[in-house]
Amino acid sequence: MSTKLSDTALFARRESEARSYCRGFDTVFTSARGSEITDAKGRTYIDFLAGCSSLNYGHNDTDMKLALIEHLSADGIAHGLDLHTDTKKAFIQAFETHILKPRGMDHKMMFTGPTGANAVEAAMKIARKSTGRTEVVAFTNGFHGVTQGALSATGNGYHRGGAGTSLNGVTRLPFDGYMGEDVDTADLLEAMLNDASSGLDAPAAIMFETVQGEGGLNAARPEWITRVAKLAKEHGALLIIDDVQAGCGRTGGFFSFDGMDVMPDIVTMAKSISGFGLPMGLVLVRPDEDVMGPAEHNGTFRGNTHAFVTARVAIEKFWADDAFLGDITRRAKIVEEGLEAIASMVDGAYLKGRGMMRGVDVGTGELAGEICAKAFENGLIVETSGSDDEVIKILAPLTTPDETLRRGLDILIAAAAEVTGANKIAAE
Amino acid sequence: MSTKLSDTALFARRESEARSYCRGFDTVFTSARGSEITDAKGRTYIDFLAGCSSLNYGHNDTDMKLALIEHLSADGIAHGLDLHTDTKKAFIQAFETHILKPRGMDHKMMFTGPTGANAVEAAMKIARKSTGRTEVVAFTNGFHGVTQGALSATGNGYHRGGAGTSLNGVTRLPFDGYMGEDVDTADLLEAMLNDASSGLDAPAAIMFETVQGEGGLNAARPEWITRVAKLAKEHGALLIIDDVQAGCGRTGGFFSFDGMDVMPDIVTMAKSISGFGLPMGLVLVRPDEDVMGPAEHNGTFRGNTHAFVTARVAIEKFWADDAFLGDITRRAKIVEEGLEAIASMVDGAYLKGRGMMRGVDVGTGELAGEICAKAFENGLIVETSGSDDEVIKILAPLTTPDETLRRGLDILIAAAAEVTGANKIAAE
Amino acid sequence: MSTKLSDTALFARRESEARSYCRGFDTVFTSARGSEITDAKGRTYIDFLAGCSSLNYGHNDTDMKLALIEHLSADGIAHGLDLHTDTKKAFIQAFETHILKPRGMDHKMMFTGPTGANAVEAAMKIARKSTGRTEVVAFTNGFHGVTQGALSATGNGYHRGGAGTSLNGVTRLPFDGYMGEDVDTADLLEAMLNDASSGLDAPAAIMFETVQGEGGLNAARPEWITRVAKLAKEHGALLIIDDVQAGCGRTGGFFSFDGMDVMPDIVTMAKSISGFGLPMGLVLVRPDEDVMGPAEHNGTFRGNTHAFVTARVAIEKFWADDAFLGDITRRAKIVEEGLEAIASMVDGAYLKGRGMMRGVDVGTGELAGEICAKAFENGLIVETSGSDDEVIKILAPLTTPDETLRRGLDILIAAAAEVTGANKIAAE
Amino acid sequence: MSTKLSDTALFARRESEARSYCRGFDTVFTSARGSEITDAKGRTYIDFLAGCSSLNYGHNDTDMKLALIEHLSADGIAHGLDLHTDTKKAFIQAFETHILKPRGMDHKMMFTGPTGANAVEAAMKIARKSTGRTEVVAFTNGFHGVTQGALSATGNGYHRGGAGTSLNGVTRLPFDGYMGEDVDTADLLEAMLNDASSGLDAPAAIMFETVQGEGGLNAARPEWITRVAKLAKEHGALLIIDDVQAGCGRTGGFFSFDGMDVMPDIVTMAKSISGFGLPMGLVLVRPDEDVMGPAEHNGTFRGNTHAFVTARVAIEKFWADDAFLGDITRRAKIVEEGLEAIASMVDGAYLKGRGMMRGVDVGTGELAGEICAKAFENGLIVETSGSDDEVIKILAPLTTPDETLRRGLDILIAAAAEVTGANKIAAE
Repeated sequence: MSTKLSDTALFARRESEARSYCRGFDTVFTSARGSEITDAKGRTYIDFLAGCSSLNYGHNDTDMKLALIEHLSADGIAHGLDLHTDTKKAFIQAFETHILKPRGMDHKMMFTGPTGANAVEAAMKIARKSTGRTEVVAFTNGFHGVTQGALSATGNGYHRGGAGTSLNGVTRLPFDGYMGEDVDTADLLEAMLNDASSGLDAPAAIMFETVQGEGGLNAARPEWITRVAKLAKEHGALLIIDDVQAGCGRTGGFFSFDGMDVMPDIVTMAKSISGFGLPMGLVLVRPDEDVMGPAEHNGTFRGNTHAFVTARVAIEKFWADDAFLGDITRRAKIVEEGLEAIASMVDGAYLKGRGMMRGVDVGTGELAGEICAKAFENGLIVETSGSDDEVIKILAPLTTPDETLRRGLDILIAAAAEVTGANKIAAE
Repeated sequence: MSTKLSDTALFARRESEARSYCRGFDTVFTSARGSEITDAKGRTYIDFLAGCSSLNYGHNDTDMKLALIEHLSADGIAHGLDLHTDTKKAFIQAFETHILKPRGMDHKMMFTGPTGANAVEAAMKIARKSTGRTEVVAFTNGFHGVTQGALSATGNGYHRGGAGTSLNGVTRLPFDGYMGEDVDTADLLEAMLNDASSGLDAPAAIMFETVQGEGGLNAARPEWITRVAKLAKEHGALLIIDDVQAGCGRTGGFFSFDGMDVMPDIVTMAKSISGFGLPMGLVLVRPDEDVMGPAEHNGTFRGNTHAFVTARVAIEKFWADDAFLGDITRRAKIVEEGLEAIASMVDGAYLKGRGMMRGVDVGTGELAGEICAKAFENGLIVETSGSDDEVIKILAPLTTPDETLRRGLDILIAAAAEVTGANKIAAE
Repeated sequence: MSTKLSDTALFARRESEARSYCRGFDTVFTSARGSEITDAKGRTYIDFLAGCSSLNYGHNDTDMKLALIEHLSADGIAHGLDLHTDTKKAFIQAFETHILKPRGMDHKMMFTGPTGANAVEAAMKIARKSTGRTEVVAFTNGFHGVTQGALSATGNGYHRGGAGTSLNGVTRLPFDGYMGEDVDTADLLEAMLNDASSGLDAPAAIMFETVQGEGGLNAARPEWITRVAKLAKEHGALLIIDDVQAGCGRTGGFFSFDGMDVMPDIVTMAKSISGFGLPMGLVLVRPDEDVMGPAEHNGTFRGNTHAFVTARVAIEKFWADDAFLGDITRRAKIVEEGLEAIASMVDGAYLKGRGMMRGVDVGTGELAGEICAKAFENGLIVETSGSDDEVIKILAPLTTPDETLRRGLDILIAAAAEVTGANKIAAE
Repeated sequence: MSTKLSDTALFARRESEARSYCRGFDTVFTSARGSEITDAKGRTYIDFLAGCSSLNYGHNDTDMKLALIEHLSADGIAHGLDLHTDTKKAFIQAFETHILKPRGMDHKMMFTGPTGANAVEAAMKIARKSTGRTEVVAFTNGFHGVTQGALSATGNGYHRGGAGTSLNGVTRLPFDGYMGEDVDTADLLEAMLNDASSGLDAPAAIMFETVQGEGGLNAARPEWITRVAKLAKEHGALLIIDDVQAGCGRTGGFFSFDGMDVMPDIVTMAKSISGFGLPMGLVLVRPDEDVMGPAEHNGTFRGNTHAFVTARVAIEKFWADDAFLGDITRRAKIVEEGLEAIASMVDGAYLKGRGMMRGVDVGTGELAGEICAKAFENGLIVETSGSDDEVIKILAPLTTPDETLRRGLDILIAAAAEVTGANKIAAE
């Protein structure tokens, strides 16, 4: 290569204008380990973005890495379409043993195209075919992907505007909390479901994220979730929980609905399911609703065998016992304290989210953006979220050592202090 | 693992009924190298399916494998969202140098979600946004994926039936050859484009595969392709060539339209673009039409960094000079001869496709299926294609040694002979 | 005719099963005058259905009738497409003079196909073309017709179920009062309009009936209407008031929004606009938004010249001064008293609607149906409304003599008493 | 009225820009009788437009007029929703006796909203509900109305452009003759119906006009019609013949398909069905496919009782015996001769259409428009048709006296001669 490694002119010249994160974090990254990532100039950053929750176990986990190198060295299958492979089998076995069985889940596992959007598209098709209905209820601020079917369910106007064609088959209702504390939006859902002329056609599915990742870390209350689940069941609609971002431990349990009295018909997973940041999509579906025929929803990469290798290690390493749950709980507390320090600097700021999927709403996207930019200058990668990017969102790897976590939070707190002019002592 | 490695009960119990190829090739695969793949019982098969053209360079190419192991060992980035990384940069550079520049292509590279369907969804959105129009012209027997937007353009009724909602924004027209030799279907396209009340709204794009992979290896004539390209230009529609399956050398040149007087506005790629079977999607788009805003079409895995590593090696190894082109041409001739031997056994059978994307139409899906099943018994993996699966389709790795290629063809010829009762001597 | 006039076998044999009102009022009607209608057996009924508010001036108003006979006798134009005719001109003049000018309305008059649904289809097209946006906000329990565009906006599930295809381009929100007294549903509309990721795309229009005729006589509060109008304006959406059923004096003023501080961009009219029950559709649209090109929204019967004749008489006879307004107010009071008498017989029953568009919600469709059936036995035609047909709806001609009105109400009250077993003395 | 009767300023001031015919025929019409129409200045025109085939029996037919006056005088029902009325009964009886029974048609009669578009919307809904399928096959240059469902099937780009939202659920195929004489477009239909991956989903209906009125008087050959009918039957699709413009004697028989070996599942009628130009819509549907539930497809004016009065007279007067058929045949010959005279003046001009639905394609809309404008100057109302308005279309009342017909044709021929500079002697 003739150009200097850290030069970015080539990207500007040849990469599409659709590129995005690289604009805010304008350097060339070369390696990463755990919760830290290093660029071509040798500078190391703490990573509180973690591939938007795709790297819940951090970068290049040693066990996964070694398993993958071993797989490669042995000429293990790299691409297997949906053929049976030993690696897929081992993953299914681990997932059944450590995830499904302990929760009494009889769900079938469907490996879709290796993206969250593809899993969501499959889920919507399953619900529609299974019920013979078309309409899917989705919620304000929900984000489910940008392929046409998933985009219909996504609330974000910027993304919707890119569709260029009719986004149909979705009825939008207010998410929990959208109408303020005094209104339970499930009342509206219930009224419309029970009203033959509400204009809400009998739905194939009700779909939501329990914590809305892109929509601003809005966390639904467990009682809202269980009530909506009950309404879905009563009205013959499938309950789809989109756990692409909130799953894999991000909010505490493996699933974001662990510990609630709810059994979704369908769960969509992607992001951290491979454990290593490799592309993988997974739909869990109750056996009675497993209605897609052979290859009816297909895709060349529905068996990313490398991902099965690392995904198996992730399950066996982190979910075979409760140790990891304890780590998450403890780290979530650390994050919470850090965010509270920031909230105290901004009038009206308040914390959002749940578990290790937390953020602070600082009122405006401008302020949140300035704080994140300042943090990046000081060695922290962190992003915003929400309708107006008004929420500083922390998606640190769940495996981040407490000390590193605190260090990252300190950078963020200092950035907030500098930007807001607050003269407070950073937490800790 | 307590179950015997070759046992498949777990798949039946826990994997979705959507699984497909594993039903026809019912064994557990464990390793693969070049054009051969081995199962848990130690049996080795010649692979003429090659991940549906995702493994054009064979399984576990040594150079790519070593590069990936090296990358892993050095804690190279695994998941980088769309951040700048050294590996992405190296791939872009190689692609610019060896692919784009020699062809005078000024296209921008857009890394979409890592599937062909996602690349197609992005292409359709770009065309719609860029033109301010909605309608996309697609063709009979075209296959572009099964997410909702792509599925609208896909012709296959089985897949379309899985949508469960309105598939709109696409006008379907007959592909080249669809109305027999005496009718140039571009006449109909032209008439409808020129007719203000034809019912064909001014299209955002005209999209097709030059050789329809799933649709039965129907190969459009270069003169049809250039005429349609010209019509697109005259009528302000973008020309999208979907090279997901036909690209990366499959039909001869790197692009399936190499050597034709045509410059598509958009090219979609996936399958073999990573070289190693890893998930990757790529859209090439003319700079003027590169209209997706930052993250407007986003996706968590739009930077599958491992795929960049192997994709770079693939470009540098196979496309830096013309040696590989010569290999493909020679092997295509071998395939052709083998298929002619089969065609001679079945009344009315005839060859289809182009380059190393060839097949033989044996009249019925039943016969084609029996021949493929018999071939599998004898150590060859090969699949069917077409509206009724009536085409035996050969998608052998382009790197298959001539001797292995002949051996695989011999198995296929023998299977055909046995099934048809033909008493012919296999070719060669 | 060989069959006896009152025999209905021919209808059963040859008329489609889609026929409806004739099932509940199973006799053959032959003549009508004012508020009374007579059947083939010579029985006369008081008509509180009035063509679903299409006969606000009663049956066969003498002045209109004579004008039409005169027009016929003089070989006046019956069918004029959208040619200029003297009768159309006279109607426009009367409408401008007595309706538009006094209200300061500069609206253009667009004669659509002669149905309310057609007027609604035109209104939606105008809003979409004028704004370049697609989405129309419609409300729970709204009814706007059953052609595909209008049906998308209609809430009724039975009618929606008849579409057989995707109903898109409409976002459904809760109407005023839908979430109970403590929630102002305009809060939700405002929140979603102001939220870039609410999933509500910037709307082309906000459309509603001020009193929902088919949806159960839900009357929006003036403050809700003006607030929604203000929100529409602020967000660049057109305000469409569908006055097909609530207009022409039904709720008091000529328009249902008379006296409120609101100036709709578009008003749709049909039903009573011809005055005589003849098919006619009319869209009023602000000059700046009068964007349909010549014949862009066309239709053979957009000039029903006979309807222009009677429509002109209706305007000149009833709306040239305030006398008629006084009659409506007085009669509305009579209706209200009658309905209160019924409400007092049923636990939880309550009055709905506004002006002469009133009803009583008796809790269940079964009870409401029984009361109406009993009333019909006793010489009164009256229908139900609402999601479950739970509202007894009175749409008596606005011209009904007070005595006739009381007589009809007495029949209804007696029917209610008989069905409910209430031993109350009927009002009066 | 203070303005002079012939002044048109009021229309410009208050009528929507959507007005159309009045722009080409810019005068104020006041009365009409038979085939002649008179304006406010006392000038009389021969009417070869006839309400776009809505006045097949001419203006103000004496018998119909008297029947309507009698009905009015007797306080006959004007508006009856879908209640049983004596007038509806009499019409059904006449239609059964003189139209349905002689043709062995067991169809049910569904009175839809009183427009052709509404009948088409109903037909499409019936087909979709009856088959459980969505897609409707429509054809190039077809015109079925401009409400959203009907507009989806309409080919005209100007009208489609007014939709402002997705027009879906329709697949467009080439009409008979669209690909020239050497191609039978039913071959394409058949191929796509038989091909599981053609992209044509199993259709609910195949719908067309036998002669395309707005599309340029393209007349399908009887053999094409019967073949398409057979294909529809074989593939479980309903055959819908849209006879709104071509029916009621316009092309010879009462139905445009009379005398062909075809029994449509559904026939849509409007325009001339009332006989008098009054709004009326009618769908004929086979009993097994009469699946719309009570009021599922409803509409306030589905019983335009005045129209029943005149419609009955029309059936009894013109269709009780074969006399009228003979008149039509003779007059069609006269029209043909006149059009041939025009065709002979323009290179490449040729006749189009069938029966009394004839025209001449003069190559360009500009020329056709000039000829029509010149004819209007000389006392003839005649319009153009076709994708570019290149066809001069004659839709004279079928009752036009031969002499008047010749007089009108002479005006047209003279206009053509003047415009083209042809020095030919007008026919006759």
